Amino acid sequence: MTGARLYVVGLGPGSAAMRTPQAEAALEAAQDLVGYGPYLARLPERPGQRRHASDNREELDRARLALDLAAEGRIVAVCSGGDAGVFAMAAAVFEAVERGEPHWRTLEIEVVAGVSAMFAAAARLGAPLGGDFCAISLSDNLKPWEVVLRRLRTAAEAGFVIALYNPSSRARPWQLSAAFEALREVLPGATPVAFCAAIGRPDEAIQITNLNVADPALADMRTLVLIGAATTKVIARPDRPPWLYTPRSVAERA
Amino acid sequence: MTGARLYVVGLGPGSAAMRTPQAEAALEAAQDLVGYGPYLARLPERPGQRRHASDNREELDRARLALDLAAEGRIVAVCSGGDAGVFAMAAAVFEAVERGEPHWRTLEIEVVAGVSAMFAAAARLGAPLGGDFCAISLSDNLKPWEVVLRRLRTAAEAGFVIALYNPSSRARPWQLSAAFEALREVLPGATPVAFCAAIGRPDEAIQITNLNVADPALADMRTLVLIGAATTKVIARPDRPPWLYTPRSVAERA
Repeated sequence: MTGARLYVVGLGPGSAAMRTPQAEAALEAAQDLVGYGPYLARLPERPGQRRHASDNREELDRARLALDLAAEGRIVAVCSGGDAGVFAMAAAVFEAVERGEPHWRTLEIEVVAGVSAMFAAAARLGAPLGGDFCAISLSDNLKPWEVVLRRLRTAAEAGFVIALYNPSSRARPWQLSAAFEALREVLPGATPVAFCAAIGRPDEAIQITNLNVADPALADMRTLVLIGAATTKVIARPDRPPWLYTPRSVAERA
Repeated sequence: MTGARLYVVGLGPGSAAMRTPQAEAALEAAQDLVGYGPYLARLPERPGQRRHASDNREELDRARLALDLAAEGRIVAVCSGGDAGVFAMAAAVFEAVERGEPHWRTLEIEVVAGVSAMFAAAARLGAPLGGDFCAISLSDNLKPWEVVLRRLRTAAEAGFVIALYNPSSRARPWQLSAAFEALREVLPGATPVAFCAAIGRPDEAIQITNLNVADPALADMRTLVLIGAATTKVIARPDRPPWLYTPRSVAERA
Protein backbone atom coordinates (compact mmCIF):
# COMPACT_ATOMS: atom_id res chain seq x y z
CA MET A 1 0.00 0.00 0.00
CA THR A 2 2.53 2.63 -1.05
CA GLY A 3 2.30 5.43 -3.59
CA ALA A 4 -0.43 7.96 -4.23
CA ARG A 5 -3.82 6.37 -3.92
CA LEU A 6 -7.40 7.20 -3.14
CA TYR A 7 -9.30 4.74 -0.98
CA VAL A 8 -13.05 5.11 -0.66
CA VAL A 9 -13.68 3.21 2.53
CA GLY A 10 -16.90 1.74 3.91
CA LEU A 11 -16.55 1.92 7.69
CA GLY A 12 -19.52 -0.34 8.34
CA PRO A 13 -22.47 0.65 10.51
CA GLY A 14 -20.51 1.77 13.53
CA SER A 15 -18.45 -0.45 15.77
CA ALA A 16 -14.97 -1.64 14.82
CA ALA A 17 -16.26 -5.23 15.19
CA MET A 18 -18.20 -4.70 11.96
CA ARG A 19 -15.31 -3.16 9.98
CA THR A 20 -13.24 -5.38 7.67
CA PRO A 21 -9.45 -5.82 7.98
CA GLN A 22 -9.24 -4.41 4.44
CA ALA A 23 -10.91 -1.19 5.60
CA GLU A 24 -8.65 -0.98 8.68
CA ALA A 25 -5.56 -1.41 6.49
CA ALA A 26 -6.67 1.43 4.21
CA LEU A 27 -7.32 3.71 7.21
CA GLU A 28 -3.89 2.88 8.59
CA ALA A 29 -2.12 3.48 5.28
CA ALA A 30 -3.83 6.83 4.70
CA GLN A 31 -1.97 10.11 5.17
CA ASP A 32 -5.21 12.07 4.82
CA LEU A 33 -8.69 11.17 6.04
CA VAL A 34 -11.56 12.95 4.32
CA GLY A 35 -15.16 12.63 5.44
CA TYR A 36 -18.23 13.73 7.28
CA GLY A 37 -17.20 14.88 10.74
CA PRO A 38 -19.11 12.35 12.89
CA TYR A 39 -17.72 9.42 10.86
CA LEU A 40 -14.13 10.62 11.28
CA ALA A 41 -14.75 11.16 15.00
CA ARG A 42 -15.33 7.38 15.40
CA LEU A 43 -11.81 6.57 14.18
CA PRO A 44 -8.70 6.53 16.39
CA GLU A 45 -6.22 9.40 15.92
CA ARG A 46 -2.97 8.36 14.24
CA PRO A 47 0.21 10.45 14.50
CA GLY A 48 1.02 12.33 11.31
CA GLN A 49 -2.37 11.64 9.74
CA ARG A 50 -4.30 14.72 8.65
CA ARG A 51 -8.08 14.98 8.97
CA HIS A 52 -10.38 16.93 6.68
CA ALA A 53 -13.83 16.85 8.28
CA SER A 54 -16.72 18.41 6.46
CA ASP A 55 -20.45 18.86 6.63
CA ASN A 56 -22.90 16.22 5.43
CA ARG A 57 -24.13 18.13 2.39
CA GLU A 58 -20.81 18.71 0.68
CA GLU A 59 -20.15 15.36 -0.99
CA LEU A 60 -18.84 16.67 -4.32
CA ASP A 61 -16.52 19.25 -2.72
CA ARG A 62 -15.24 16.54 -0.40
CA ALA A 63 -14.63 14.21 -3.35
CA ARG A 64 -12.72 16.92 -5.24
CA LEU A 65 -10.57 17.69 -2.21
CA ALA A 66 -9.69 13.99 -1.91
CA LEU A 67 -8.89 13.71 -5.62
CA ASP A 68 -6.69 16.81 -5.44
CA LEU A 69 -4.76 15.39 -2.50
CA ALA A 70 -4.24 12.04 -4.25
CA ALA A 71 -3.13 13.88 -7.41
CA GLU A 72 -0.51 15.65 -5.26
CA GLY A 73 0.88 12.23 -4.37
CA ARG A 74 -0.82 11.63 -1.03
CA ILE A 75 -2.46 8.44 0.20
CA VAL A 76 -6.02 9.48 0.94
CA ALA A 77 -8.98 7.68 2.50
CA VAL A 78 -12.47 9.04 1.92
CA CYS A 79 -14.61 7.63 4.73
CA SER A 80 -18.26 6.59 4.42
CA GLY A 81 -20.57 4.96 6.93
CA GLY A 82 -21.83 1.49 5.98
CA ASP A 83 -20.79 0.48 2.47
CA ALA A 84 -19.10 3.21 0.45
CA GLY A 85 -21.14 2.40 -2.66
CA VAL A 86 -24.61 2.66 -1.11
CA PHE A 87 -25.92 6.24 -0.96
CA ALA A 88 -22.44 7.23 0.15
CA MET A 89 -19.17 8.66 -1.14
CA ALA A 90 -18.18 6.31 -3.98
CA ALA A 91 -20.72 7.74 -6.43
CA ALA A 92 -19.68 11.31 -5.54
CA VAL A 93 -16.01 10.47 -6.16
CA PHE A 94 -16.66 9.02 -9.62
CA GLU A 95 -19.04 11.85 -10.46
CA ALA A 96 -16.24 14.27 -9.61
CA VAL A 97 -13.80 12.23 -11.71
CA GLU A 98 -16.12 12.23 -14.71
CA ARG A 99 -16.66 15.99 -14.59
CA GLY A 100 -13.16 16.89 -13.41
CA GLU A 101 -9.50 16.98 -14.41
CA PRO A 102 -8.54 14.43 -17.11
CA HIS A 103 -5.49 13.36 -15.07
CA TRP A 104 -7.78 12.23 -12.26
CA ARG A 105 -8.60 9.23 -14.50
CA THR A 106 -5.05 7.98 -14.11
CA LEU A 107 -5.24 7.89 -10.30
CA GLU A 108 -5.29 4.65 -8.35
CA ILE A 109 -8.78 4.63 -6.83
CA GLU A 110 -9.81 1.68 -4.70
CA VAL A 111 -13.29 1.34 -3.26
CA VAL A 112 -13.27 -0.77 -0.09
CA ALA A 113 -16.65 -2.40 0.47
CA GLY A 114 -18.22 -2.50 3.93
CA VAL A 115 -21.17 -3.91 5.83
CA SER A 116 -24.08 -1.72 4.79
CA ALA A 117 -26.64 -0.28 7.20
CA MET A 118 -29.41 -2.22 5.48
CA PHE A 119 -27.76 -5.60 6.00
CA ALA A 120 -26.75 -4.80 9.58
CA ALA A 121 -30.35 -3.79 10.31
CA ALA A 122 -31.73 -6.88 8.59
CA ALA A 123 -29.42 -9.10 10.65
CA ARG A 124 -30.83 -7.65 13.87
CA LEU A 125 -34.39 -8.29 12.73
CA GLY A 126 -34.01 -11.86 11.45
CA ALA A 127 -34.05 -12.27 7.68
CA PRO A 128 -36.39 -9.61 6.29
CA LEU A 129 -34.40 -9.41 3.02
CA GLY A 130 -34.75 -13.14 2.37
CA GLY A 131 -36.35 -12.60 -1.05
CA ASP A 132 -35.81 -10.00 -3.75
CA PHE A 133 -35.33 -6.52 -2.33
CA CYS A 134 -34.49 -2.95 -3.25
CA ALA A 135 -32.91 0.11 -1.69
CA ILE A 136 -34.41 3.55 -2.27
CA SER A 137 -33.22 6.90 -1.00
CA LEU A 138 -36.25 8.89 0.08
CA SER A 139 -34.42 12.18 -0.38
CA ASP A 140 -35.78 14.42 -3.09
CA ASN A 141 -32.70 16.62 -3.03
CA LEU A 142 -31.24 14.75 -6.00
CA LYS A 143 -34.30 13.34 -7.75
CA PRO A 144 -37.86 14.52 -8.27
CA TRP A 145 -40.38 13.39 -5.69
CA GLU A 146 -42.53 11.81 -8.42
CA VAL A 147 -39.64 9.48 -9.27
CA VAL A 148 -39.33 8.46 -5.62
CA LEU A 149 -43.05 7.76 -5.39
CA ARG A 150 -43.14 5.78 -8.63
CA ARG A 151 -40.21 3.62 -7.51
CA LEU A 152 -41.85 2.94 -4.14
CA ARG A 153 -45.15 1.93 -5.70
CA THR A 154 -43.58 -0.20 -8.42
CA ALA A 155 -41.28 -1.98 -5.98
CA ALA A 156 -44.12 -2.77 -3.58
CA GLU A 157 -46.41 -3.96 -6.37
CA ALA A 158 -43.70 -6.24 -7.75
CA GLY A 159 -43.11 -7.83 -4.33
CA PHE A 160 -39.73 -6.36 -3.36
CA VAL A 161 -38.86 -5.76 0.27
CA ILE A 162 -37.87 -2.07 0.49
CA ALA A 163 -34.97 -0.59 2.44
CA LEU A 164 -35.53 3.15 2.74
CA TYR A 165 -32.43 5.30 3.20
CA ASN A 166 -32.59 8.97 4.21
CA PRO A 167 -36.20 8.65 5.37
CA SER A 168 -36.41 11.94 7.20
CA SER A 169 -34.50 15.05 8.22
CA ARG A 170 -35.31 18.51 9.52
CA ALA A 171 -35.24 19.82 5.95
CA ARG A 172 -37.45 16.96 4.67
CA PRO A 173 -40.10 16.35 7.33
CA TRP A 174 -43.11 15.17 5.26
CA GLN A 175 -41.72 12.64 2.77
CA LEU A 176 -41.88 9.52 4.93
CA SER A 177 -45.51 10.13 5.78
CA ALA A 178 -46.31 10.52 2.08
CA ALA A 179 -44.35 7.35 1.31
CA PHE A 180 -46.32 5.31 3.87
CA GLU A 181 -49.55 6.71 2.44
CA ALA A 182 -48.59 5.65 -1.09
CA LEU A 183 -47.53 2.20 0.08
CA ARG A 184 -50.81 1.64 1.97
CA GLU A 185 -52.57 1.79 -1.41
CA VAL A 186 -50.50 -1.17 -2.58
CA LEU A 187 -49.58 -3.30 0.44
CA PRO A 188 -51.70 -4.87 3.21
CA GLY A 189 -51.88 -2.77 6.37
CA ALA A 190 -50.33 -5.67 8.33
CA THR A 191 -47.11 -5.50 6.28
CA PRO A 192 -44.21 -5.35 8.78
CA VAL A 193 -42.28 -2.07 9.03
CA ALA A 194 -39.11 -1.71 11.09
CA PHE A 195 -37.37 1.48 12.19
CA CYS A 196 -33.67 0.75 12.77
CA ALA A 197 -31.48 3.50 14.20
CA ALA A 198 -27.74 3.54 14.92
CA ILE A 199 -27.31 -0.22 14.40
CA GLY A 200 -24.18 -1.59 16.09
CA ARG A 201 -23.67 1.60 18.11
CA PRO A 202 -24.40 2.21 21.77
CA ASP A 203 -27.57 4.16 20.98
CA GLU A 204 -29.01 1.41 18.74
CA ALA A 205 -32.82 1.42 18.69
CA ILE A 206 -35.19 -0.86 16.80
CA GLN A 207 -38.96 -0.59 16.61
CA ILE A 208 -41.11 -3.12 14.80
CA THR A 209 -44.59 -2.14 13.73
CA ASN A 210 -46.80 -2.42 10.64
CA LEU A 211 -47.73 -0.21 7.73
CA ASN A 212 -51.18 0.62 9.12
CA VAL A 213 -49.85 2.27 12.25
CA ALA A 214 -46.24 3.12 11.33
CA ASP A 215 -45.46 6.53 12.78
CA PRO A 216 -43.15 8.61 10.56
CA ALA A 217 -42.01 10.54 13.63
CA LEU A 218 -40.03 7.44 14.70
CA ALA A 219 -37.46 8.14 11.94
CA ASP A 220 -34.68 10.65 11.76
CA MET A 221 -31.46 11.03 9.77
CA ARG A 222 -29.85 8.03 11.47
CA THR A 223 -32.74 5.66 10.78
CA LEU A 224 -33.08 2.96 8.17
CA VAL A 225 -36.70 2.00 7.52
CA LEU A 226 -37.39 -1.53 6.30
CA ILE A 227 -40.76 -2.22 4.69
CA GLY A 228 -41.68 -5.84 4.16
CA ALA A 229 -43.25 -7.42 1.12
CA ALA A 230 -46.77 -8.85 1.38
CA THR A 231 -45.05 -12.22 2.00
CA THR A 232 -42.91 -11.01 4.95
CA LYS A 233 -43.71 -12.84 8.16
CA VAL A 234 -43.55 -12.12 11.86
CA ILE A 235 -42.40 -14.94 14.16
CA ALA A 236 -43.66 -14.28 17.66
CA ARG A 237 -41.39 -15.22 20.57
CA PRO A 238 -42.08 -15.50 24.28
CA ASP A 239 -40.89 -12.35 26.14
CA ARG A 240 -38.76 -11.14 23.24
CA PRO A 241 -39.25 -8.94 20.18
CA PRO A 242 -40.47 -10.95 17.19
CA TRP A 243 -38.27 -12.05 14.32
CA LEU A 244 -39.07 -10.86 10.80
CA TYR A 245 -38.32 -12.91 7.74
CA THR A 246 -39.25 -13.00 4.10
CA PRO A 247 -39.59 -16.51 2.66
CA ARG A 248 -37.26 -17.32 -0.20
CA SER A 249 -40.11 -18.73 -2.22
CA VAL A 250 -43.00 -16.97 -3.94
CA ALA A 251 -46.23 -18.84 -4.60
CA GLU A 252 -47.59 -19.15 -8.12
CA ARG A 253 -50.09 -16.30 -7.99
CA ALA A 254 -48.00 -13.76 -6.05
CA MET B 1 -20.08 -15.77 23.93
CA THR B 2 -21.00 -18.69 26.18
CA GLY B 3 -24.09 -20.90 26.28
CA ALA B 4 -26.07 -22.49 23.50
CA ARG B 5 -26.37 -20.20 20.54
CA LEU B 6 -26.91 -20.21 16.82
CA TYR B 7 -24.86 -17.79 14.77
CA VAL B 8 -25.76 -17.29 11.14
CA VAL B 9 -22.53 -15.86 9.81
CA GLY B 10 -21.82 -13.91 6.62
CA LEU B 11 -18.29 -14.86 5.64
CA GLY B 12 -17.97 -12.08 3.06
CA PRO B 13 -17.08 -12.69 -0.57
CA GLY B 14 -13.99 -14.77 0.00
CA SER B 15 -10.77 -13.54 1.53
CA ALA B 16 -10.35 -13.11 5.28
CA ALA B 17 -9.52 -9.43 4.60
CA MET B 18 -13.19 -8.87 3.83
CA ARG B 19 -14.53 -10.72 6.89
CA THR B 20 -15.51 -8.71 9.98
CA PRO B 21 -14.02 -9.28 13.45
CA GLN B 22 -17.57 -10.04 14.61
CA ALA B 23 -17.79 -12.91 12.10
CA GLU B 24 -14.34 -14.21 13.10
CA ALA B 25 -15.35 -14.17 16.77
CA ALA B 26 -18.49 -16.20 16.03
CA LEU B 27 -16.46 -18.73 14.01
CA GLU B 28 -13.97 -19.04 16.85
CA ALA B 29 -16.67 -19.47 19.51
CA ALA B 30 -18.52 -22.13 17.52
CA GLN B 31 -18.34 -25.79 18.51
CA ASP B 32 -20.10 -26.81 15.28
CA LEU B 33 -19.78 -25.30 11.82
CA VAL B 34 -22.66 -25.99 9.44
CA GLY B 35 -22.62 -24.99 5.78
CA TYR B 36 -22.07 -25.60 2.12
CA GLY B 37 -18.83 -27.57 1.71
CA PRO B 38 -16.79 -25.05 -0.34
CA TYR B 39 -17.55 -22.23 2.16
CA LEU B 40 -16.40 -24.35 5.11
CA ALA B 41 -13.28 -25.35 3.18
CA ARG B 42 -12.14 -21.70 3.18
CA LEU B 43 -12.04 -21.59 6.98
CA PRO B 44 -9.08 -22.70 9.11
CA GLU B 45 -9.50 -25.96 11.05
CA ARG B 46 -9.83 -25.48 14.80
CA PRO B 47 -9.16 -28.29 17.29
CA GLY B 48 -12.34 -29.74 18.78
CA GLN B 49 -14.61 -27.95 16.31
CA ARG B 50 -16.95 -30.23 14.35
CA ARG B 51 -17.84 -29.60 10.71
CA HIS B 52 -21.10 -30.48 9.02
CA ALA B 53 -20.62 -29.86 5.31
CA SER B 54 -23.53 -30.29 2.96
CA ASP B 55 -24.57 -29.84 -0.61
CA ASN B 56 -25.75 -26.50 -2.00
CA ARG B 57 -29.41 -27.47 -2.44
CA GLU B 58 -30.15 -28.56 1.10
CA GLU B 59 -30.69 -25.24 2.87
CA LEU B 60 -33.69 -26.23 4.98
CA ASP B 61 -32.17 -29.53 6.12
CA ARG B 62 -28.98 -27.68 6.99
CA ALA B 63 -30.96 -25.09 8.97
CA ARG B 64 -32.81 -27.82 10.90
CA LEU B 65 -29.56 -29.61 11.74
CA ALA B 66 -28.12 -26.35 13.09
CA LEU B 67 -31.24 -25.64 15.15
CA ASP B 68 -31.20 -29.17 16.59
CA LEU B 69 -27.56 -28.80 17.60
CA ALA B 70 -28.20 -25.43 19.27
CA ALA B 71 -31.25 -26.91 21.03
CA GLU B 72 -28.93 -29.62 22.41
CA GLY B 73 -26.87 -26.86 24.00
CA ARG B 74 -24.11 -26.46 21.41
CA ILE B 75 -22.67 -23.23 20.03
CA VAL B 76 -23.29 -23.46 16.31
CA ALA B 77 -22.28 -21.28 13.37
CA VAL B 78 -24.17 -21.62 10.10
CA CYS B 79 -21.86 -20.23 7.42
CA SER B 80 -22.95 -18.29 4.35
CA GLY B 81 -20.90 -16.61 1.66
CA GLY B 82 -21.29 -12.81 1.40
CA ASP B 83 -23.98 -11.51 3.72
CA ALA B 84 -26.04 -14.18 5.51
CA GLY B 85 -29.30 -12.35 4.82
CA VAL B 86 -28.97 -12.02 1.03
CA PHE B 87 -30.09 -15.14 -0.85
CA ALA B 88 -28.28 -17.12 1.82
CA MET B 89 -28.87 -19.08 5.01
CA ALA B 90 -30.63 -16.58 7.31
CA ALA B 91 -33.99 -16.89 5.54
CA ALA B 92 -33.74 -20.69 5.56
CA VAL B 93 -33.03 -20.68 9.31
CA PHE B 94 -36.06 -18.54 10.15
CA GLU B 95 -38.23 -20.49 7.74
CA ALA B 96 -37.21 -23.65 9.62
CA VAL B 97 -37.95 -21.93 12.93
CA GLU B 98 -41.41 -20.85 11.82
CA ARG B 99 -42.36 -24.32 10.62
CA GLY B 100 -40.47 -26.23 13.28
CA GLU B 101 -40.34 -27.04 16.97
CA PRO B 102 -41.92 -24.39 19.23
CA HIS B 103 -38.89 -24.46 21.56
CA TRP B 104 -36.66 -23.32 18.69
CA ARG B 105 -38.24 -19.87 19.21
CA THR B 106 -36.55 -19.62 22.58
CA LEU B 107 -33.05 -20.16 21.12
CA GLU B 108 -30.46 -17.41 20.99
CA ILE B 109 -30.09 -16.79 17.26
CA GLU B 110 -27.68 -14.10 16.11
CA VAL B 111 -27.31 -13.17 12.47
CA VAL B 112 -23.85 -11.72 11.79
CA ALA B 113 -23.91 -9.43 8.74
CA GLY B 114 -21.15 -9.56 6.15
CA VAL B 115 -19.91 -7.83 3.01
CA SER B 116 -22.27 -9.02 0.30
CA ALA B 117 -21.12 -10.18 -3.14
CA MET B 118 -23.06 -7.34 -4.78
CA PHE B 119 -21.25 -4.63 -2.82
CA ALA B 120 -17.86 -6.28 -3.26
CA ALA B 121 -18.48 -6.48 -7.00
CA ALA B 122 -19.72 -2.89 -7.15
CA ALA B 123 -16.58 -1.71 -5.33
CA ARG B 124 -14.38 -3.31 -7.96
CA LEU B 125 -16.32 -1.62 -10.76
CA GLY B 126 -16.50 1.93 -9.36
CA ALA B 127 -19.90 2.97 -8.04
CA PRO B 128 -22.54 1.26 -10.19
CA LEU B 129 -25.01 1.16 -7.27
CA GLY B 130 -24.80 4.92 -6.73
CA GLY B 131 -28.56 5.42 -7.13
CA ASP B 132 -31.54 3.28 -6.18
CA PHE B 133 -30.95 -0.41 -6.83
CA CYS B 134 -32.43 -3.86 -6.36
CA ALA B 135 -31.29 -7.44 -5.99
CA ILE B 136 -33.11 -10.24 -7.77
CA SER B 137 -32.42 -13.96 -7.70
CA LEU B 138 -32.81 -15.30 -11.22
CA SER B 139 -33.50 -18.79 -9.94
CA ASP B 140 -36.95 -20.13 -10.69
CA ASN B 141 -36.55 -23.00 -8.24
CA LEU B 142 -38.38 -21.03 -5.57
CA LYS B 143 -40.56 -18.63 -7.55
CA PRO B 144 -42.38 -18.79 -10.87
CA TRP B 145 -40.44 -17.54 -13.87
CA GLU B 146 -43.21 -15.01 -14.64
CA VAL B 147 -42.58 -13.36 -11.28
CA VAL B 148 -38.86 -13.12 -12.05
CA LEU B 149 -39.56 -11.57 -15.44
CA ARG B 150 -42.08 -9.08 -14.07
CA ARG B 151 -39.66 -7.94 -11.38
CA LEU B 152 -36.87 -7.50 -13.90
CA ARG B 153 -39.03 -5.44 -16.25
CA THR B 154 -40.57 -3.24 -13.58
CA ALA B 155 -37.21 -2.63 -11.90
CA ALA B 156 -35.60 -1.60 -15.18
CA GLU B 157 -38.54 0.60 -16.15
CA ALA B 158 -38.46 2.34 -12.78
CA GLY B 159 -34.74 3.13 -13.10
CA PHE B 160 -33.23 0.71 -10.58
CA VAL B 161 -29.77 -0.72 -11.11
CA ILE B 162 -30.18 -4.51 -10.93
CA ALA B 163 -27.90 -6.99 -9.17
CA LEU B 164 -28.70 -10.48 -10.44
CA TYR B 165 -27.92 -13.37 -8.11
CA ASN B 166 -27.94 -17.02 -9.26
CA PRO B 167 -27.84 -16.02 -12.94
CA SER B 168 -27.01 -19.42 -14.33
CA SER B 169 -26.27 -23.02 -13.47
CA ARG B 170 -26.17 -26.34 -15.28
CA ALA B 171 -29.77 -26.99 -14.21
CA ARG B 172 -30.90 -23.49 -15.31
CA PRO B 173 -29.06 -22.71 -18.54
CA TRP B 174 -31.57 -20.50 -20.44
CA GLN B 175 -32.85 -17.99 -17.85
CA LEU B 176 -30.12 -15.36 -18.19
CA SER B 177 -30.55 -15.19 -21.93
CA ALA B 178 -34.31 -14.72 -21.50
CA ALA B 179 -33.65 -12.05 -18.86
CA PHE B 180 -31.37 -10.06 -21.20
CA GLU B 181 -33.98 -10.35 -23.93
CA ALA B 182 -36.69 -8.96 -21.66
CA LEU B 183 -34.45 -6.13 -20.47
CA ARG B 184 -33.53 -5.12 -24.04
CA GLU B 185 -37.19 -4.22 -24.54
CA VAL B 186 -36.94 -1.71 -21.71
CA LEU B 187 -33.34 -0.46 -21.50
CA PRO B 188 -31.03 1.07 -24.14
CA GLY B 189 -28.66 -1.44 -25.75
CA ALA B 190 -25.71 0.60 -24.47
CA THR B 191 -26.69 0.01 -20.83
CA PRO B 192 -23.58 -1.30 -19.03
CA VAL B 193 -23.59 -4.93 -17.91
CA ALA B 194 -20.84 -6.43 -15.74
CA PHE B 195 -20.10 -10.09 -15.06
CA CYS B 196 -18.30 -10.42 -11.73
CA ALA B 197 -17.02 -13.82 -10.67
CA ALA B 198 -15.28 -14.92 -7.46
CA ILE B 199 -14.72 -11.35 -6.22
CA GLY B 200 -11.90 -11.10 -3.68
CA ARG B 201 -10.66 -14.61 -4.44
CA PRO B 202 -7.63 -15.66 -6.49
CA ASP B 203 -9.78 -16.60 -9.49
CA GLU B 204 -11.60 -13.24 -9.57
CA ALA B 205 -12.74 -12.30 -13.06
CA ILE B 206 -14.63 -9.21 -14.23
CA GLN B 207 -15.98 -8.51 -17.68
CA ILE B 208 -17.66 -5.25 -18.61
CA THR B 209 -19.90 -5.13 -21.63
CA ASN B 210 -23.34 -3.77 -22.58
CA LEU B 211 -26.85 -5.12 -22.84
CA ASN B 212 -26.76 -5.32 -26.65
CA VAL B 213 -23.88 -7.77 -26.78
CA ALA B 214 -23.91 -9.30 -23.27
CA ASP B 215 -23.19 -13.01 -23.64
CA PRO B 216 -25.08 -15.17 -21.12
CA ALA B 217 -22.37 -17.83 -21.45
CA LEU B 218 -20.05 -15.55 -19.43
CA ALA B 219 -22.01 -16.34 -16.26
CA ASP B 220 -21.99 -19.40 -14.06
CA MET B 221 -22.99 -20.20 -10.47
CA ARG B 222 -20.19 -18.06 -9.03
CA THR B 223 -21.09 -14.96 -11.05
CA LEU B 224 -22.93 -11.85 -9.99
CA VAL B 225 -24.35 -9.93 -12.96
CA LEU B 226 -24.82 -6.17 -12.54
CA ILE B 227 -27.11 -4.41 -14.99
CA GLY B 228 -26.98 -0.63 -15.04
CA ALA B 229 -29.85 1.80 -15.16
CA ALA B 230 -30.28 3.97 -18.24
CA THR B 231 -28.37 6.65 -16.29
CA THR B 232 -25.33 4.45 -15.49
CA LYS B 233 -22.14 5.84 -17.02
CA VAL B 234 -18.86 4.45 -18.25
CA ILE B 235 -15.71 6.46 -17.48
CA ALA B 236 -12.99 5.53 -19.96
CA ARG B 237 -9.41 5.36 -18.68
CA PRO B 238 -6.11 5.11 -20.53
CA ASP B 239 -4.84 1.48 -20.64
CA ARG B 240 -7.20 0.33 -17.89
CA PRO B 241 -10.71 -1.11 -17.68
CA PRO B 242 -13.32 1.63 -17.43
CA TRP B 243 -15.06 2.64 -14.22
CA LEU B 244 -18.84 2.33 -13.98
CA TYR B 245 -20.93 4.64 -11.89
CA THR B 246 -24.55 5.59 -11.49
CA PRO B 247 -25.10 9.27 -10.70
CA ARG B 248 -26.87 9.98 -7.43
CA SER B 249 -29.24 12.38 -9.14
CA VAL B 250 -32.09 11.72 -11.53
CA ALA B 251 -33.18 14.43 -13.98
CA GLU B 252 -36.74 15.71 -13.95
CA ARG B 253 -38.09 13.60 -16.81
CA ALA B 254 -36.34 10.32 -15.98
